[in-house]
Amino acid sequence: MYIIGIAGGTGSGKTTVVRRIVETLPKTKVAVIPQDSYYKCNDGVPMEERRKINFDHPNAFDWPLLISQINDLRQGRAIEQPTYSYLESNRMKETIHIEPCEVIIIEGIMALCRPELRELMDLKIFVDADPDDRLIRVITRDMAERGRTAQMVMDRYVDVLKPMHMEFIEPTKRYADLIIPQGGNNKHAIDIMRTYIIHRLHP
Amino acid sequence: MYIIGIAGGTGSGKTTVVRRIVETLPKTKVAVIPQDSYYKCNDGVPMEERRKINFDHPNAFDWPLLISQINDLRQGRAIEQPTYSYLESNRMKETIHIEPCEVIIIEGIMALCRPELRELMDLKIFVDADPDDRLIRVITRDMAERGRTAQMVMDRYVDVLKPMHMEFIEPTKRYADLIIPQGGNNKHAIDIMRTYIIHRLHP
Repeated sequence: MYIIGIAGGTGSGKTTVVRRIVETLPKTKVAVIPQDSYYKCNDGVPMEERRKINFDHPNAFDWPLLISQINDLRQGRAIEQPTYSYLESNRMKETIHIEPCEVIIIEGIMALCRPELRELMDLKIFVDADPDDRLIRVITRDMAERGRTAQMVMDRYVDVLKPMHMEFIEPTKRYADLIIPQGGNNKHAIDIMRTYIIHRLHP
Repeated sequence: MYIIGIAGGTGSGKTTVVRRIVETLPKTKVAVIPQDSYYKCNDGVPMEERRKINFDHPNAFDWPLLISQINDLRQGRAIEQPTYSYLESNRMKETIHIEPCEVIIIEGIMALCRPELRELMDLKIFVDADPDDRLIRVITRDMAERGRTAQMVMDRYVDVLKPMHMEFIEPTKRYADLIIPQGGNNKHAIDIMRTYIIHRLHP
């Protein structure tokens, strides 16, 4: 089994990179584990408290669950991946059954944050993008998908996203074996990663 | 033919990366073109003038020759690669005969500097390293190979290497398709590049 961690800031194009790497590979051989699915379970936490959760802070994640499930996969055991509802700010009842397979991709803003998780990875990638390009993507996306104004997004960016990025995401770039600049539009890097994974699947 | 440019600052480990990528590949199929071989011919320039040459400035290179030779290779014509003597600060009479082959690697501190050269490249790589780590390598190397004291190297670093790096090398990182951090010790990145090139040689 080959475990790849792919980190990068919000709006860096990391999800696109992962999607494009994976889309041409056989589905039975590659599993993507989105870190987003591992936000903490908030059963018993009042809705008012849940609304205050800082989803861009490492404390929002259920690290022990993520790490133990990656360990399970690594040891050949299937997992029930949790799912998360942003509406409820809580874990959902549904799970996704994931069989151990040849390549596991752990993808998320803080995928390279925890040393215990990094130690499980065979390859660590950081998807990088200029801060202004990331901001443009975040504004565009949050206006389209969350009905926010540009001003609301910029306020949140300055108050939360940027300081969290500087404190927890940017510093993990130094753990990367490879840095992919220009995120999702970087055809060459995506082609190289795809070739490498295919080679690992069929050496 | 597939043309790869590999740039990076002095002491970044770029040459090691290239050597490790190339050493397991068939010699007849890969050629390395060191940008260092393309310093300008200084016939007729007095020795006193030659001593003042700033080898870390783009003006020290014979860009038209490098670009025309890469174009020759690309069009299937062999080249006579120049060689350079640092002792004489001049081009030597000897040339190296290079046949066109499947993969060409152009390696040098300013390999990504010129747009005409970048346009000839199918893949652009920047080998990155922390400035202090680069400085340590430069001091160690120049003390061992050039008989300089640490103070002499640091003076030159501050006066020449650093400003040239900031002005001409660091900005070319943004043209890279892939950034390889931790230079020559980065086994994963080297393995990925090697796999990719082998795949291109035997698709």
